[in-house]
Amino acid sequence: MGASIKDVAQRAGVSVTSVSRVLNGEKYVSKALLEKVNRVIEELNYSPSHIARSLKSQKTSIIGIIVPNLTNQFSSTILSNIEETASAKGYNLLVGNIAESLEKELKYLRIFQNMRVDGIIVMHQKFDDRILDFFAGASMPILFSSVKAPSSTYLSVMIDDYQAAFDTTEHLIQTGHVNVAYLGGDLDDITSGLNRYRGFLDAMKKHGLEQDERFVKFGDYKLPSGHRLMEEIIRQDELPTVVFAASDDMAVGALNCALDYGLQVPKDISIVGFDGSRITELVRPAITSMEQPVEELGRKSVDYMHQLIVNPEFTFDSDIILQHRLVVRESSRALM
Amino acid sequence: MGASIKDVAQRAGVSVTSVSRVLNGEKYVSKALLEKVNRVIEELNYSPSHIARSLKSQKTSIIGIIVPNLTNQFSSTILSNIEETASAKGYNLLVGNIAESLEKELKYLRIFQNMRVDGIIVMHQKFDDRILDFFAGASMPILFSSVKAPSSTYLSVMIDDYQAAFDTTEHLIQTGHVNVAYLGGDLDDITSGLNRYRGFLDAMKKHGLEQDERFVKFGDYKLPSGHRLMEEIIRQDELPTVVFAASDDMAVGALNCALDYGLQVPKDISIVGFDGSRITELVRPAITSMEQPVEELGRKSVDYMHQLIVNPEFTFDSDIILQHRLVVRESSRALM
Repeated sequence: MGASIKDVAQRAGVSVTSVSRVLNGEKYVSKALLEKVNRVIEELNYSPSHIARSLKSQKTSIIGIIVPNLTNQFSSTILSNIEETASAKGYNLLVGNIAESLEKELKYLRIFQNMRVDGIIVMHQKFDDRILDFFAGASMPILFSSVKAPSSTYLSVMIDDYQAAFDTTEHLIQTGHVNVAYLGGDLDDITSGLNRYRGFLDAMKKHGLEQDERFVKFGDYKLPSGHRLMEEIIRQDELPTVVFAASDDMAVGALNCALDYGLQVPKDISIVGFDGSRITELVRPAITSMEQPVEELGRKSVDYMHQLIVNPEFTFDSDIILQHRLVVRESSRALM
Repeated sequence: MGASIKDVAQRAGVSVTSVSRVLNGEKYVSKALLEKVNRVIEELNYSPSHIARSLKSQKTSIIGIIVPNLTNQFSSTILSNIEETASAKGYNLLVGNIAESLEKELKYLRIFQNMRVDGIIVMHQKFDDRILDFFAGASMPILFSSVKAPSSTYLSVMIDDYQAAFDTTEHLIQTGHVNVAYLGGDLDDITSGLNRYRGFLDAMKKHGLEQDERFVKFGDYKLPSGHRLMEEIIRQDELPTVVFAASDDMAVGALNCALDYGLQVPKDISIVGFDGSRITELVRPAITSMEQPVEELGRKSVDYMHQLIVNPEFTFDSDIILQHRLVVRESSRALM
């Protein structure tokens, strides 16, 4: 076995990333770095040929992306942020919109494979054995954006959904809300379903509040389900003081339903969403939301994908967890 | 030269489409048609081999689609309708989001070509010579959806934008509006820019109304430009009674601006959009809009693309013009 890229990096006193940037022929490499790395490569008789092959040739500069549903405001928000960074780095993005079908996901994954895309970004979180097999056998890097990867073999760029839901609920309680309604997603969906619900529950528990069965309902993250669940709540004998929805789309549905029933938001009831989709600012009253850092999420997903593509020896110890942030807008108010 | 598919169709007394459906092995072909066409094929010694090759083999079942901007509500609405029909017909859709850049459009077109997609659907209407050259030399069918094709060589599936804007303006005038404001798009953009503006102007003229310079403004179809132009109008000394925006996104921007300034819609001012994006129903008050038949537009775009793909001799005399329809919702009112 000859020298590895790691040996080159150590001897040259630079990072593996720097070596790979030199090998990859990137533009903005200093002359000093270039000379140093190339000297060590000669000294160690390191053969960049196979690296060069895997780095330079056979590259398509295409990243395939699996999107659960383009009509989802969060998906399209993230996607346009991914697009921006990908474009700046010289990648073209091909979008496979699976409309939440695993059959379609498998089809698109196979198409991406046949096209020899440089990498695949997955924004969907339900898997079956065929899809897991595909991931395991894939010849290109796979990265999970805004969702948890099925195993630590893969890199995820995401927020801590549990903590974000916990913090939102705690904020509501600390501003005087006791009757907190929760509109959740599918609990089979670990990241945005189960973890957000657990965060809500634990924050309630921490403050000695019980989950009121009348006020906890589950939908599918989409706008109509938010409207429908809100209608169920309004038609009951008592209103909660705030509704915390696990997606911005559901929050908009709940808001519209409240307005359709003649309620004033936030005077009669507060509404809080989750995700940081553009839609929160686009309705009136604008919606308070626990925001994922959508720009950073898009940028870092592409940055790390780029690392995985150009540097076959790139390793990571853990997921990339980004900071969530509650953005208070017009749809919620403190009760004290 | 042997018999052509047209000869087969004539002799069998059926349409070319029917013959190609038989050759293409489609499911829902009657037994009678199947036998008749196959008999004529034998009689004429017609060799379906090259047809079969061009029809069956080398097909990727992928349709590439050029989308101007995924963050545009109309684009994503049409796209999900195209997706539905494409999926039902066994096609996978690869989306190239060009973010309104001709450079990106050219890149995606070339990627689609290299991938040997079966066809390309274009939803963007600005072209330069390189793109026109690409279209002219393309080895697969190209269809324009919701925009006018650059020449009659290509099929467009669209509405009559001039007539739709004319009808909207006339409806407003006939319901008592005299001070009609118009928020338009780029006049270089024939379909949705120039034609809609001309429709507005001609309807005003027909009813003896002059264009009031203070009330006619041009933006870029996007939400922020609707907000900005509306602000310019509100800050003037007089309000129009209705604002007609050339896109639903601009109408939402105008609506938000009106609400932000404390105006009541439609009591103080009516707002009317154009396109039929989902967003019109998703805000409050829900927006009156001149709607394109988005489902039909998606379905027919794929239906005709399928024809162009499976039937190399498919011809058309004119564009496919779909019916527009004014949908009156809460954001507008009659003044008489």
